Amino acid sequence: MISVAIINVTSYTGLELLRLLAQHPHLRVTSVTARSLAGQTLGEVFPQLYALPSFTTAIDPMMVIAEEPAPSDLAFVCLPHAAAAEAVAQLLERGTKVVDLSADFRLRDVAEYEQWYQHTHPVPALLESAVFGLSECYPNQIAGARLVANPGCHSTTAILGLLPAFARGIVEPDVIIDSKSGISGAGRSLKLGNLYSEVNEDVSAYSLNGHRHLPEIIQELQAVAADNGHPQSAIRVTFLPHLIPMTRGLLATCYATLTPEALERLNSSSIQELYRAYYAGSPFVHIVEQPPHTKWASGSNHCFIYPTVDTRTGRLIVISCIDNLMKGASGQAIQNANLMCGLPETAGLPVLGVNP
Amino acid sequence: MISVAIINVTSYTGLELLRLLAQHPHLRVTSVTARSLAGQTLGEVFPQLYALPSFTTAIDPMMVIAEEPAPSDLAFVCLPHAAAAEAVAQLLERGTKVVDLSADFRLRDVAEYEQWYQHTHPVPALLESAVFGLSECYPNQIAGARLVANPGCHSTTAILGLLPAFARGIVEPDVIIDSKSGISGAGRSLKLGNLYSEVNEDVSAYSLNGHRHLPEIIQELQAVAADNGHPQSAIRVTFLPHLIPMTRGLLATCYATLTPEALERLNSSSIQELYRAYYAGSPFVHIVEQPPHTKWASGSNHCFIYPTVDTRTGRLIVISCIDNLMKGASGQAIQNANLMCGLPETAGLPVLGVNP
Amino acid sequence: MISVAIINVTSYTGLELLRLLAQHPHLRVTSVTARSLAGQTLGEVFPQLYALPSFTTAIDPMMVIAEEPAPSDLAFVCLPHAAAAEAVAQLLERGTKVVDLSADFRLRDVAEYEQWYQHTHPVPALLESAVFGLSECYPNQIAGARLVANPGCHSTTAILGLLPAFARGIVEPDVIIDSKSGISGAGRSLKLGNLYSEVNEDVSAYSLNGHRHLPEIIQELQAVAADNGHPQSAIRVTFLPHLIPMTRGLLATCYATLTPEALERLNSSSIQELYRAYYAGSPFVHIVEQPPHTKWASGSNHCFIYPTVDTRTGRLIVISCIDNLMKGASGQAIQNANLMCGLPETAGLPVLGVNP
Amino acid sequence: MISVAIINVTSYTGLELLRLLAQHPHLRVTSVTARSLAGQTLGEVFPQLYALPSFTTAIDPMMVIAEEPAPSDLAFVCLPHAAAAEAVAQLLERGTKVVDLSADFRLRDVAEYEQWYQHTHPVPALLESAVFGLSECYPNQIAGARLVANPGCHSTTAILGLLPAFARGIVEPDVIIDSKSGISGAGRSLKLGNLYSEVNEDVSAYSLNGHRHLPEIIQELQAVAADNGHPQSAIRVTFLPHLIPMTRGLLATCYATLTPEALERLNSSSIQELYRAYYAGSPFVHIVEQPPHTKWASGSNHCFIYPTVDTRTGRLIVISCIDNLMKGASGQAIQNANLMCGLPETAGLPVLGVNP
Repeated sequence: MISVAIINVTSYTGLELLRLLAQHPHLRVTSVTARSLAGQTLGEVFPQLYALPSFTTAIDPMMVIAEEPAPSDLAFVCLPHAAAAEAVAQLLERGTKVVDLSADFRLRDVAEYEQWYQHTHPVPALLESAVFGLSECYPNQIAGARLVANPGCHSTTAILGLLPAFARGIVEPDVIIDSKSGISGAGRSLKLGNLYSEVNEDVSAYSLNGHRHLPEIIQELQAVAADNGHPQSAIRVTFLPHLIPMTRGLLATCYATLTPEALERLNSSSIQELYRAYYAGSPFVHIVEQPPHTKWASGSNHCFIYPTVDTRTGRLIVISCIDNLMKGASGQAIQNANLMCGLPETAGLPVLGVNP
Repeated sequence: MISVAIINVTSYTGLELLRLLAQHPHLRVTSVTARSLAGQTLGEVFPQLYALPSFTTAIDPMMVIAEEPAPSDLAFVCLPHAAAAEAVAQLLERGTKVVDLSADFRLRDVAEYEQWYQHTHPVPALLESAVFGLSECYPNQIAGARLVANPGCHSTTAILGLLPAFARGIVEPDVIIDSKSGISGAGRSLKLGNLYSEVNEDVSAYSLNGHRHLPEIIQELQAVAADNGHPQSAIRVTFLPHLIPMTRGLLATCYATLTPEALERLNSSSIQELYRAYYAGSPFVHIVEQPPHTKWASGSNHCFIYPTVDTRTGRLIVISCIDNLMKGASGQAIQNANLMCGLPETAGLPVLGVNP
Repeated sequence: MISVAIINVTSYTGLELLRLLAQHPHLRVTSVTARSLAGQTLGEVFPQLYALPSFTTAIDPMMVIAEEPAPSDLAFVCLPHAAAAEAVAQLLERGTKVVDLSADFRLRDVAEYEQWYQHTHPVPALLESAVFGLSECYPNQIAGARLVANPGCHSTTAILGLLPAFARGIVEPDVIIDSKSGISGAGRSLKLGNLYSEVNEDVSAYSLNGHRHLPEIIQELQAVAADNGHPQSAIRVTFLPHLIPMTRGLLATCYATLTPEALERLNSSSIQELYRAYYAGSPFVHIVEQPPHTKWASGSNHCFIYPTVDTRTGRLIVISCIDNLMKGASGQAIQNANLMCGLPETAGLPVLGVNP
Repeated sequence: MISVAIINVTSYTGLELLRLLAQHPHLRVTSVTARSLAGQTLGEVFPQLYALPSFTTAIDPMMVIAEEPAPSDLAFVCLPHAAAAEAVAQLLERGTKVVDLSADFRLRDVAEYEQWYQHTHPVPALLESAVFGLSECYPNQIAGARLVANPGCHSTTAILGLLPAFARGIVEPDVIIDSKSGISGAGRSLKLGNLYSEVNEDVSAYSLNGHRHLPEIIQELQAVAADNGHPQSAIRVTFLPHLIPMTRGLLATCYATLTPEALERLNSSSIQELYRAYYAGSPFVHIVEQPPHTKWASGSNHCFIYPTVDTRTGRLIVISCIDNLMKGASGQAIQNANLMCGLPETAGLPVLGVNP
């Protein structure tokens, strides 16, 4: 068994990791931390964990939450940005492999990071060795990495939806991403906008001045375009997230213009084929033939993608959806940990989501 | 008092009309119809109406639902398309003014109608005299009309959001409308996709092959552009509706490209001014300075619009939202009836929506 | 016009008062306060209010929120308990009539109050003149009162559901009240348990050690029993509230045992008659013939009550439901203000709720 | 591997069985049926199943739905009552073991069945050998049975909540069960009351004239009382279910009167101990020390029970909650199948539910 620590276990991503690790065949939770609730047991913070001991020894609900992690083979860091970077640096020094769920090591360009996050990066030297943790993009690098930067939930959905189109050079470098997400992405933080009475029966756009997942999206689309011989120096992305009244789920509707050649040569069906071929080896990405529902993915690590051509306008529309706490956070983190530990990529991840 | 009939009162739009008419100072419901439930009383179908007699005489919960309407000054037709056209023709013959909530008289071009609705128009001769019932566009024509075609809910939201931009010629004739709506727009029909267990905790796109509100949107944007000296023969619109887990509310996010001149001359603030000036005389349209929430409009006839420039890409983003059963259906219908009857435009409409 | 102040306008009950007062024919808001947001305008805190000026002069969205109220004829106090009592005392001294939405003046027995609320009552001398503000119970006293204590939302629903049974002495003095309420009753406070991700798809009981609405319920049931010659010195009430995933609505299911005489003499139908007769003069209370839905009342001041006999066990089951922010708070407050000002009881209150 | 058939796979319980069987270590789906959708593949009816082949061979999304089941070791019958009984008879004749999720074999007394279900039982001879499938009650009988009648969701929750109290004879034989359930229990049937717009933001009671789960509850409480030397010939149960706006989850609040001896001898804490001892060997039943949330159980087979004494009235309150599609249907069915096949009781069942 491989020992793992969860740093800031009292977040929603921490809780979701506990659920997944409770039945993981190879990883075992040996240490959990959280500043504000240190001293309490896991079971006191999450009473549903008292259901655990009856059939698993993977996690002990009586485990006491510590301030600092005990040594382990691997750690999941669920801290907010900036705080995360410092914890990551300490863990790496100890020789612990890290999957960082924060934004601190996603952007390769430190200047870009500092502009978007408005503070000095605590450990810029680590940026070079960090791997962007989208398993479908960088499986080999992740397998060899000591620090993996788990991508943002919006970024994951949008990048997976647009990667094949950019890699194959079938779209103009100008794209609109209209994203709709459940509220759990906002975490357990006590803000007026997260209250039930505010969220229920409401939809609104947010981060109109630029959401922090935007530079990740640009970085990765640019990279894949370049890698595949389609250098697109000036990718223009409009990315607008919306909050909708549900707990889990994230759906990105991506609008791009097909290149004249692509428009002539391809249709919805052949683009679906192209997408299917692109993701042939990816156990969690599924190209479907009808508009997908976020509910299909609920509780699972799957991503459903539906690319289609709006024949009236020649636009490529790609609808991509996930469970934001799974493929958009903790599920992806387990997938990365599996790769880093030489385990099967799907180990410990549910086969199907929970429906209805 | 002006007597009104509600045709197919057992629909959600019929029920919403009852709510509004129950406290309308000048309109009185004298006749209600519904094929399948004829013979029952209003109170049997909608038990909440038993609350009525205690403080109003505007509607009687013991009123029997008929198959055919009794004569009245005005009628609201809440039938599905095709059935609506036939009922409208009969009502007009009798001399009854009509607000038709179906799609039968929205499109001026009968060929367009027949292509989108896949059947022969029952009474094409009436199309010429029908007025598109968006009160903000055609107040004078509505005031003089005998037949008003209440617009679709998606169309209303999108057109109101884009009108000023097209009228002032500040955007290229190429626009993407990403629309998110509550489920009540689908009516009381018994379809799997309308079940609570399917809709709850889910978001999905629909009508990928073209939603029937698209031709209305194109027709009206084209018209306003032409009227204001910006003939845009080739308006390209991608319109994609999404279903989200809420009962009421509709939010359209519109993406357009500013013309080079507009981009140079205007910014978010001046565009908001331009919008505010455009809607200066409109009591229900409000230009706001932050992303609006559908909840602000819930239960009211208001439309909130937020135009802003995405400075990274030079795109104009306009967010427009309403309550789909109000400004998107029954509220707009009352507003139209008010205009047709020479009443104050706001008569009988709630001042504020219900929050939270 | 009668001038009114809203103390702590930034609460949900304050917001609901604004909605109702915006179209009240006789009351006009002239002063609003809130400690933490003083200095901001109403429109800044509640942007949906920008919709106001277009058709009403009743409330000005540019009104600045003050720390202390300006003089007015009447004030609605929306403060938490203890803070409320102090504000009430000051208002009364100035000669302002008060509807207090807190719990500070609901219990006639100061000892009872101090036991349940765990602090010394700031102004016990005022308790004697305060009237319990359930309009259906004390219309004349309310009409003559200077201080009315608006009842709790759970209390209102349960008391209205059980009053006729206790007044007519048809049940044993032993009752179970199982209450289900939407989350808006918890207000706009930032607690983990109020977050969307916690409330959504969940139901749970709370206040197992005794909810503070219990003594109000006992006080009023005891009083009505005594008044009607059924002194029941030992009323035993088990009251258990549950939180369910909706914003508005409160439904109390009350279980009582019919007295042997009542069981012999009465059935569901005759008990419904008895209830109907009891509430004959009450415009907002409706005895219905099928289980009511909270949705019927949504946005309105109505209360729907369904009493029925469980013939298998001889138990009386009474289901009573309201909108907790309306009949359970701000709607009831307006009804009380109407009575206190000699206005029609229904003035300014919506005829019908918002459905669906 | 043990081969299993799912009869009427297109129900929600059928879909939930597919989810569980997709990662069951010993059971393999070899046949699925559904009258109305025969000829389609599983993947056509439930597109989310296309995610399957990538990591499991347990279920094939291309499996064609048949009208009649192919032979298998065990079958899960998800048909409505009456239809179920006939299918069960045929399966048993073939030598297939059956877990029947309908109500057809839950009641031991055929007269009782025929009174509640208002039709003649198709195969009354099978009633004798059927075992009531509450694994915590009848583990040995289930292990040896060929026909197990999976209990109703309300029954499961209430019986588990009350069993220890009745077995130990600490309560009077008179109990009130107020049950709150999500809408998925109503299945995928197209009824007005199941529509999102009707269920959302609403709570209501139903089956006021007697819900069909009531006789199951009485049968089992009576049996356990008798078995434990507390023959209670006249158990009086009032059972009232409520529908609340969520997809999954069921919470029963049970009110009983402690016997005078129990009241003197026991308190909340000692009753919790008594309950804990009673369920010591049950991996899915958990006695907790605070009011449980249905969300704790979501997606899992767990049942959380909180017994406590209302000291003001001497009543025992027991709150019991489950996921209605899991412990209340398909999870319980798998648990039964495990017992019937000599497998570990917990095989194939998730360790933890999905939170938030």
